[in-house]
Amino acid sequence: MSDTTTRERMISTAVRLFRRDGFAATSWRRLVDEAGTPWGSAHHHFPGGKEQLGVEAIRLGGRIVGKTIDHAFRTHDSAPEAIRWWFAKAAEALADTDYRGGCPLATITLETANSSPLLTAALRETFEQWHQQLRSAFRERGHPEQTADELATATTTNLEGALLLARVRRSPDPLTVASEHVAILIAERSR
Amino acid sequence: MSDTTTRERMISTAVRLFRRDGFAATSWRRLVDEAGTPWGSAHHHFPGGKEQLGVEAIRLGGRIVGKTIDHAFRTHDSAPEAIRWWFAKAAEALADTDYRGGCPLATITLETANSSPLLTAALRETFEQWHQQLRSAFRERGHPEQTADELATATTTNLEGALLLARVRRSPDPLTVASEHVAILIAERSR
Repeated sequence: MSDTTTRERMISTAVRLFRRDGFAATSWRRLVDEAGTPWGSAHHHFPGGKEQLGVEAIRLGGRIVGKTIDHAFRTHDSAPEAIRWWFAKAAEALADTDYRGGCPLATITLETANSSPLLTAALRETFEQWHQQLRSAFRERGHPEQTADELATATTTNLEGALLLARVRRSPDPLTVASEHVAILIAERSR
Repeated sequence: MSDTTTRERMISTAVRLFRRDGFAATSWRRLVDEAGTPWGSAHHHFPGGKEQLGVEAIRLGGRIVGKTIDHAFRTHDSAPEAIRWWFAKAAEALADTDYRGGCPLATITLETANSSPLLTAALRETFEQWHQQLRSAFRERGHPEQTADELATATTTNLEGALLLARVRRSPDPLTVASEHVAILIAERSR
């Protein structure tokens, strides 16, 4: 197995397991086993162990969501339509994991934010990148700066909250309701 | 230490640690140590170990939040005012824990929902109780059934999502924005 492959497999396995089971419940042994990487090689790539891998998993999870946001707004001129598409896709992905998936960053955020400085910094940076992307999308659609900022916050708030409720209820409905509510806010702020 | 005290101390310690560090990161040993209960007595009260204690912690966390919801709507005739008060109180509580507290159920929900049947059942029941409480509050304020249901979902979605963002940003602002947005939805649905 090449060095790049080992590294990448470890990171993508970490994204999957941290999202489903959380950071604390996922042991280093399990990560190495599920990634199918040689033990020594895993340590060579991540001398900082699970915390260092956590930072990389947060960054990869961030890029995956970032691409989805980009696609949503590139393929829909209307912000409400972009958000409906995105939230529906998130609902689908959640159902596909038997309601154990969700946001790749949410579980690790609630588990570790403000306890591990390294993970906290990576989480803040990633949420800030999403926020800037969303803010730009609203700015490009004619919203003034402060409104764009508020709507970006509302979008992430609604997505994260609805993913949690959808998981508890084993239903995509909270995501449908949330996208309609963000659409109402956008309309209200466009008056 | 009386039997009741031992039991109660274990449960309230569990609420605090599961909320701050999560379910997986909190060991049985740590729970017993922090509760200051005799080891044998802890096992006697919770023969099902951490999972059984988790169920009780979810129920106690549920009752604490339930009381807050009740207080919010009992002391404010206006639903938007009730929600502003509640979300501001949640922001304050989060700041008081150096942004490591938040919802007593959110972390354990993302960690365990749909993996442990016992915990999942307790979580669903508790979220459903909150939902019924909120739905009744909106019904009592004249909203038709479906709107009351939607607004109840929106309230929980906004609270949970904003608590997550507030934690990442170390700021109460997402909760302020979220309560204003729920107020806009309520106004929109009252037209």
